[in-house]
Amino acid sequence: MTDFANTKPFEWPVRVYYEDTDAQGVVYYANYFRFMERARTEWLRALGVNQEQMLHEERRMFVVTKTELEFVVAARFNDELIVTARLSGLSRATFDIEQKIYRGSLDGTLCCRGGIRAALLNADTLRPLRVPASLFEENQS
Amino acid sequence: MTDFANTKPFEWPVRVYYEDTDAQGVVYYANYFRFMERARTEWLRALGVNQEQMLHEERRMFVVTKTELEFVVAARFNDELIVTARLSGLSRATFDIEQKIYRGSLDGTLCCRGGIRAALLNADTLRPLRVPASLFEENQS
Amino acid sequence: MTDFANTKPFEWPVRVYYEDTDAQGVVYYANYFRFMERARTEWLRALGVNQEQMLHEERRMFVVTKTELEFVVAARFNDELIVTARLSGLSRATFDIEQKIYRGSLDGTLCCRGGIRAALLNADTLRPLRVPASLFEENQS
Amino acid sequence: MTDFANTKPFEWPVRVYYEDTDAQGVVYYANYFRFMERARTEWLRALGVNQEQMLHEERRMFVVTKTELEFVVAARFNDELIVTARLSGLSRATFDIEQKIYRGSLDGTLCCRGGIRAALLNADTLRPLRVPASLFEENQS
Repeated sequence: MTDFANTKPFEWPVRVYYEDTDAQGVVYYANYFRFMERARTEWLRALGVNQEQMLHEERRMFVVTKTELEFVVAARFNDELIVTARLSGLSRATFDIEQKIYRGSLDGTLCCRGGIRAALLNADTLRPLRVPASLFEENQS
Repeated sequence: MTDFANTKPFEWPVRVYYEDTDAQGVVYYANYFRFMERARTEWLRALGVNQEQMLHEERRMFVVTKTELEFVVAARFNDELIVTARLSGLSRATFDIEQKIYRGSLDGTLCCRGGIRAALLNADTLRPLRVPASLFEENQS
Repeated sequence: MTDFANTKPFEWPVRVYYEDTDAQGVVYYANYFRFMERARTEWLRALGVNQEQMLHEERRMFVVTKTELEFVVAARFNDELIVTARLSGLSRATFDIEQKIYRGSLDGTLCCRGGIRAALLNADTLRPLRVPASLFEENQS
Repeated sequence: MTDFANTKPFEWPVRVYYEDTDAQGVVYYANYFRFMERARTEWLRALGVNQEQMLHEERRMFVVTKTELEFVVAARFNDELIVTARLSGLSRATFDIEQKIYRGSLDGTLCCRGGIRAALLNADTLRPLRVPASLFEENQS
């Protein structure tokens, strides 16, 4: 039985630029979701998943079906953030990814915590496909 | 006792442009949060709340403290969406807004459902302020 | 001979939301290009051009091949802008659209002036197609 | 006399994510301006300029006063781009930065070429300040 809680999360650094901030002086709330997706994309890349090839050759794509996020401390222009991604659930049709955003390092200020549920779809029919159990295994070729 | 469930939601139309879509051919998931904030901003405007004046003269600002969103059916380029906002909870320090996004009209396809929790902050100290009970009353001057 | 200079420009209103601003307190420079495209898209719609149908049924799409923009006075959160679009040049392969952004009305403060050059492409081969001379005529069916 | 043309450009890598693309399957045109600003920000950082401190402690900020960009070949999801920035002009009140975006490396496909003119402003009065001649010298502390 998989103990997701003990999995070491994937980490991805994100620099905050002016484009990410708003007139309140902090990162605009929707933009954390962009940061979270960068971390997920890079994690998939590290796992050997080529989303570009998936979409155009295999006509399969991941879609986010739900998300939730708690905003703890606002990030600011020039902050170097660490965005984590960790598998927290896996069923035949969906998988859950827990994500956190820290300032500076995993020991730094927690800015956000939340996650997404995703599904794998046939890109033509938009019907759900079975999520391969091997997707999140480290040693896939 | 307030029965939030019976309140008629505020509605705001949003057109989907290329800027909102991604290479999967649908609205990029983070952008629904932009649409949701447009509806909230226009609702506040309709209620007589001037956020610009609040921020610069009164040094008070609303911040989203958590959000959740379920993606039901993807919206596409050129879609005319209706974004709703309805008060679903109110405490001394926070208020909850339930939001839905439909294609075309409230009778159309439901694209997303979710909501946000928000707080009112002192813009200098970032300390929470009491949310005025009168904020969401229709007849404020 | 066409005298483009005398053409009345198309006008489209754009409200500035937090999503459009940055930590400098003004509209982030790249976002004016989003506003400009909204005006062009609505202008095409008013002219009877359905870009969605063009892309998916006719496999033709407009692409911007160059743009220039001068930033005169910064727009701010809550500003109601008027974005104009006016044909300023037309050749077999490209057309030019002059665009200006004003605060409030055409008599208001000029925020930006510039424009784009666009081409019509075959969406599969990405080869340029001849721009139909009738495209910008008001009375097309 | 400064021969700007011989200056080696600063280079910054940018990965294309779904957030950057649109339903035409390519990078949305306004987003190249975001990439260009990331390169300029990182170049300033490499030159020892702390824009955050400039804005909040010295109340000075850079603003883009004009920009132009030619779109040569569209970048796509998953592309690794190289964005360059090189000083191409300097006067008392403004400076020009030439920028190019390549796919993969400086030997790869040229996606865009253009640049910006920028000024240094007093963040309170928004009046232009003299651009320090030392700004773009490599050896400032």
